[in-house]
Amino acid sequence: MMKFTVNQREFSDALAIASKAIISKTPLDILKGFYLEAYENELTITGNNLEIGIRTSIDAAVETEGKSVIDAKILSDIIRKLPNEEVTVSIKDGNVLLQCQKLKFTIKEMLDNGFPTVDELEEAVYQNIHPAILEEMIKKTHFAVTTDETKPVFMGELVELEDNQMNVIALDGFRLAYKKCELKSSVGSRSMIIPGKTMVEIMRLCQTMEEDVKIGIEDRHASFLFGRTLVNTQLIQGEFSKYEEIIPKEFSTKIKVNRQKFIDALDRATLVSKNYLVKLRIQNDELLITAHDNEVGNLEEILDVELEGKNLEIAFNIRFFLDSLKVMEDEYIYMNFNTNVSPCIIKPEFETDYTYLVLPVRI
Amino acid sequence: MMKFTVNQREFSDALAIASKAIISKTPLDILKGFYLEAYENELTITGNNLEIGIRTSIDAAVETEGKSVIDAKILSDIIRKLPNEEVTVSIKDGNVLLQCQKLKFTIKEMLDNGFPTVDELEEAVYQNIHPAILEEMIKKTHFAVTTDETKPVFMGELVELEDNQMNVIALDGFRLAYKKCELKSSVGSRSMIIPGKTMVEIMRLCQTMEEDVKIGIEDRHASFLFGRTLVNTQLIQGEFSKYEEIIPKEFSTKIKVNRQKFIDALDRATLVSKNYLVKLRIQNDELLITAHDNEVGNLEEILDVELEGKNLEIAFNIRFFLDSLKVMEDEYIYMNFNTNVSPCIIKPEFETDYTYLVLPVRI
Repeated sequence: MMKFTVNQREFSDALAIASKAIISKTPLDILKGFYLEAYENELTITGNNLEIGIRTSIDAAVETEGKSVIDAKILSDIIRKLPNEEVTVSIKDGNVLLQCQKLKFTIKEMLDNGFPTVDELEEAVYQNIHPAILEEMIKKTHFAVTTDETKPVFMGELVELEDNQMNVIALDGFRLAYKKCELKSSVGSRSMIIPGKTMVEIMRLCQTMEEDVKIGIEDRHASFLFGRTLVNTQLIQGEFSKYEEIIPKEFSTKIKVNRQKFIDALDRATLVSKNYLVKLRIQNDELLITAHDNEVGNLEEILDVELEGKNLEIAFNIRFFLDSLKVMEDEYIYMNFNTNVSPCIIKPEFETDYTYLVLPVRI
Repeated sequence: MMKFTVNQREFSDALAIASKAIISKTPLDILKGFYLEAYENELTITGNNLEIGIRTSIDAAVETEGKSVIDAKILSDIIRKLPNEEVTVSIKDGNVLLQCQKLKFTIKEMLDNGFPTVDELEEAVYQNIHPAILEEMIKKTHFAVTTDETKPVFMGELVELEDNQMNVIALDGFRLAYKKCELKSSVGSRSMIIPGKTMVEIMRLCQTMEEDVKIGIEDRHASFLFGRTLVNTQLIQGEFSKYEEIIPKEFSTKIKVNRQKFIDALDRATLVSKNYLVKLRIQNDELLITAHDNEVGNLEEILDVELEGKNLEIAFNIRFFLDSLKVMEDEYIYMNFNTNVSPCIIKPEFETDYTYLVLPVRI
C-alpha cells in the first residue's frame, strides 16, 4: 500500500538521476528496479548497481506512506511520456496505477526481496568542493581510465587530498592525465581510487549543480552529496602507480604549437591511417606531420611551431593525443620530448595545473 | 592530366550533393567513384548508381582541362576535413594530389572504364514547380512507400500530372498517402512511378533551393533540374493500383480530434504494446484508447472528441497512424470510419488536399 502525487517533470528528472545507477544486465533482478519510499512530504527514489548507488528526493503529496520496487526502465519510460501535470501513483496488491489527467497506466510492482538501500556513510570525513571545479577535474582526466578488466586499479581514477590541494589522476599504460586544484579547506592527507564510471556520473551531476558538493570518504566507500541527491560508490582497492615518478622533469626538445591547428591536422591524418599511426618530424621551427595508408594514400602537412632544443622524429597513436587536446582550452600548447622512445609531456600554455603524458609508438 | 583550383566549402557541398547517388555496395567498382570533369571555368561532379544519377557543377580555376574518376568516400572525407581555403587538385599518372595551404594529400585515381554519365533528357517534356511545394508533396507521402522488394511498383510513388494539378500517391498495402497541389502551367496528362529513394533525395534538394525545379519527363526516365544540379532517375514500370477506388467517399462514423493529443496518446500506447496494437473505442464524445502488454501492463486513456454518427470499436497498428499524424500541421484532424474491417480515412481539418488511409487490424 502506498499512494502519492508528484509533479511529472520533477518525477521524470529524479528518475533520470537515479537511473544512472541502473544496469540492464544483472543476475540480481531487484537491481533492475527503483526503490521508492514515500514518507511525510517526500518521495525518495533509489537506484543501485552495488558499485554505484544513487538516492534522490522530491516533494510529494503523500496520502499513504510506504515503499515499493518498480521496474526502472518501464517507470522511467512512462513518466517521461506523460504530460507535465500532477501524477498520482497508487500501489495495491502488487499493481501500480499511474494516473495523470484522463489516462491510467497499470504496471506490476516488483517483489521487494531486500533492496540494497543507499545511506549516508556513518564514519565519513567530509570535503567540500565547487561542482564546476570537480567537473573540470574529471572532464580533463577520465578518458585515460582503462576499460581493460585485467587492470582493475586503472579502471578507476586516483583522487588525492593533500592539505589544501586535490589531485585527480588517470592512467592506462599508454597515457596519463593529471589535473590538480586548490581547495578552500583541508581534511588532511587521504587518497582513494574511485571507479571511472562513477566519476563520469559525478561529472554529469556537477553540470546541473551550483552549490558545493560534499565528498564523504571512508575506507571502502565514498559518497558525493549534491543537495537532495546522494551518490555512494565503492572504492577500488589496490595500489595505484607512483605516477609522479613516470613524469619526466627535463626535456631536450620542446615545441609550442597552435592547439586547434594540431587537432585539425591529426584529424585529417586519421583519414590515411587506419591504425591511427602518425609520424611527427620536428625540425627547426616546423612540425612535419605524415601519415600513410596502403589502400588510401598519404598525407604530409607542415605546421609552424616554436622549437627549443634538438630536432626529433617520433611516432604516436593519434587517438591518445586527440582525447586530451580536445578538452584543453588554451590557444597554444607545449609538447616536451626527450627521445623517440620516451614519453611526450603535453601542457597547455597557461593552464599549469594540467599535465598529459603519452608514450610514443616505436617506428 | 587535369588540374584545377576550387573553394573548399563549395567543393565539399557539391560532393555531398553528388554523393547521394553513391552506393557503397555494388559489383561495379566504377560506381563507387565520382566522375570529375574540369572544362573552361567549371568543375562538374557526377555520382551515379544507375537508378539515380546526380550531376552538379561549381566554379573552378581550371589550369589543365580533363576528366577523372576518384573514390567518392575518400574524396568526400578528405575535402570535408580541409580548412575553408582554396584547394588545388592535380592528377597525373594515376595519382591525385590535393593541396591546401601547407598540406598535401596523395590518393589514387580510379581507372575510368566507362563511367555512366548523367545527361539532360533529349525528348523530355518539362514541368516547373516551386521547390517548397514539391518538398511538401513528398514529405507527406514518402513514408507510405514500401521497402518490400516483392512489390516493386509500390517501392515508388505515383506522380500524376492532370492539366493544372499534380497528385503524389504512395501506398504499401496497409496505408495510402495522397497529396495534391495546383500547378501554374500544364503539360497535359502524364503519369509516372518514381523510385521512393529518388523522391527522398529530391525532397532534400528542394530544402536548399529557392528557384523553380524543372521536372523533365520521358518514357523510362525523369529528371529534376535545380540550378546547376541535375538529378536523373529511372522510372518504375508497371501498373499502380487504382487508388481512387480504394478511398471510400461515405462514412458512418466521423470524429474530430486534437492531433497532438492523439499523437501523445499513441506514443504512450507504444510503451505497453510491443506489437504496436492499439484499440480505439468511440462512444459519444469520447475516444477511449487502450493498449496491453502481458509483460508490462495496460494503458487506458480518454480523449475528448466531437462525434458525428455511430459508436465504433476498431484496432490499428500505431506506427501507421503516427507516420502521417506527425507530418500534418493542423491542430485538429478528422477520422472517418465505416466498420471495424474497413479503412479509416484521416484528413487534417483545413488541409483538404491531403488524404491518408489506413487499414484496421482485425480483433
